[in-house]
Amino acid sequence: MRPFNFSAGPATLPVEVLEQAASEMLDWRGSGMSVMEMSHRGKEYMEIHQTALDDLRALLEIPASHRILFTQGGAIAENALIPLNLLGARQSADYVITGSWSEKSFKEAKKYCTPHVAVSTADEGFRRVPPVEQWRLSDDPAYVHVCTNETVNGVEMFETPSLGDVPLVADVSSHFLSRPMDVAKYGVMYGGAQKNAGIAGLTFVVVREDLLGRTLGICPSAFDWNLVALNNSMYNTPPTYAIYIAGLVFQWLKRQGGLPAIEARNREKAGLLYGAIDASDFYVNDVDPAARSLMNVPFRLHDETLNEAFLKGAKERGLLQLKGHKSVGGMRASIYNAMPLEGVQAVAAYLRDFERQAG
Amino acid sequence: MRPFNFSAGPATLPVEVLEQAASEMLDWRGSGMSVMEMSHRGKEYMEIHQTALDDLRALLEIPASHRILFTQGGAIAENALIPLNLLGARQSADYVITGSWSEKSFKEAKKYCTPHVAVSTADEGFRRVPPVEQWRLSDDPAYVHVCTNETVNGVEMFETPSLGDVPLVADVSSHFLSRPMDVAKYGVMYGGAQKNAGIAGLTFVVVREDLLGRTLGICPSAFDWNLVALNNSMYNTPPTYAIYIAGLVFQWLKRQGGLPAIEARNREKAGLLYGAIDASDFYVNDVDPAARSLMNVPFRLHDETLNEAFLKGAKERGLLQLKGHKSVGGMRASIYNAMPLEGVQAVAAYLRDFERQAG
Repeated sequence: MRPFNFSAGPATLPVEVLEQAASEMLDWRGSGMSVMEMSHRGKEYMEIHQTALDDLRALLEIPASHRILFTQGGAIAENALIPLNLLGARQSADYVITGSWSEKSFKEAKKYCTPHVAVSTADEGFRRVPPVEQWRLSDDPAYVHVCTNETVNGVEMFETPSLGDVPLVADVSSHFLSRPMDVAKYGVMYGGAQKNAGIAGLTFVVVREDLLGRTLGICPSAFDWNLVALNNSMYNTPPTYAIYIAGLVFQWLKRQGGLPAIEARNREKAGLLYGAIDASDFYVNDVDPAARSLMNVPFRLHDETLNEAFLKGAKERGLLQLKGHKSVGGMRASIYNAMPLEGVQAVAAYLRDFERQAG
Repeated sequence: MRPFNFSAGPATLPVEVLEQAASEMLDWRGSGMSVMEMSHRGKEYMEIHQTALDDLRALLEIPASHRILFTQGGAIAENALIPLNLLGARQSADYVITGSWSEKSFKEAKKYCTPHVAVSTADEGFRRVPPVEQWRLSDDPAYVHVCTNETVNGVEMFETPSLGDVPLVADVSSHFLSRPMDVAKYGVMYGGAQKNAGIAGLTFVVVREDLLGRTLGICPSAFDWNLVALNNSMYNTPPTYAIYIAGLVFQWLKRQGGLPAIEARNREKAGLLYGAIDASDFYVNDVDPAARSLMNVPFRLHDETLNEAFLKGAKERGLLQLKGHKSVGGMRASIYNAMPLEGVQAVAAYLRDFERQAG
């Protein structure tokens, strides 16, 4: 059996996806070429590209009002590319800060404008999502930015606020495609694919079409969303193999029953793991239960001198990459779509067994 | 036998590289993980990353004065990122225009400065490389930009000029690693990996260390070369799988005997193909013989009404992607490192046979 890999990203992929990629590596459907070797202008790759776009649209029920862009640079690049593409004539944008990723987005925006903090839970240690009534928007922001799943802090936003005319821009990297989302309520959704939608090197942007055309002149053309959209994500050579893998993941998701079915599985997995953590004072997760992420489950051992022994024992059982992010320490289990229930059951069992041994 | 794929990029890869990638897809060296699934901070991926950097340095004999950066966005993104990273306090940069790629670089630079054309062969149809004596540099340019191999026009720069204190910046995308180059003479070499060094989605930048730190404040942090260098190309999540494939290509190149040996093979291949074109008036390549690219061989049929028949017959023989770039028409055979001699022999034989049939 393969070990279970709880990495926060790049992260575990469905075994079927890896098997298909391996089997097609030297010859994609009789073309005589690997997908890696195909001209992005050739009919074979064009089919892969369009199928990935179409499958993503169907899975997430993306309305016709929104365009899907495939680009590069990850969410960290987008932290700059969002103000570059959305500020237009405006001088400010609002940021809701609920963890280390939204904080990073806010800091990068300072290169291009005077961003405003609508609300922050930094002083409380990033353990909750403030309701929209607590957000203090500025007068005429270009957009309001949120991170709907904070990978490091394990905080997820389950309610999508309605902000009237102000576009809502969301970094959804680490829970994209983990459950249905009401795309129509978002001006922009963006993220890196390497958590729940494929591999590192592919960035997706889902943008409401009427927001295109606000790009500042200093934005590199390769990252000008309007140019990318006009060229169907082929203004420059796209990361073709990463798009192919994302396409295989989308097809796998369809075979699982789509996003409603995957959400049910994800809720079962998360419920099992949080239950095991809460069952004993030996382990601690102090995120507000209403904001606990279904994807990234950080926890601490009450006695942190046992950390090394915990990780060593986990690895011996084939439970990999449970170490928490260096900025917060402790442990973290990322349980993305591709993590089978059996993997979460194995962690839950290990939590009980390790406590019994060490306690 | 696999067909021969003459795509200009993404392009054919060594079969051994594809076979190794397929065989390691589900489990990289007993780690229990695909390379795609590895945390970029884990020891397995760190080893892959560092080995790729080290192998590239050894192959190209990159001196200690230069840093290697792995980034994203391709050469088209770099067209903006070069002025963003190199202008510093200067207002201009000089461009040598020898084909459609250097022309594109020049146009993008206008977003950030007033670029100056040092020399252009546009009026002559991009058929030669003007010697450095014909370049008219401006007073104090931040750099001089060249494209040392014009993929569309089939024009290669074989002499590396000495420009004193002015940094020479070169787009080397389509002949990178095709022969030894004197890296010490370049301030920056950059390109997309998808032609001769791997797959789409990975961009390499080889930069002289003293040029770091000139980055403009409006450059996105993810593409700030100084930050990328300080973080050993892990400021953001790198395109890990593309770096792994590049690493396999580097190891394949070492097994071929390194760059001197690959240059000898490339010269043999190019000589054979240009010889077949020149052998008859039926085919035309009118690039100055001293500037003919060893990698990209554009040619026309004298009677262009035969184009479709030519391409159809080629495909029937397993000779794929011979159609020229849409901006210039005609044919093009890209014969990168991974194209075996047998592939070039097959094209040369087809040129003779097609002429005999159609002539």
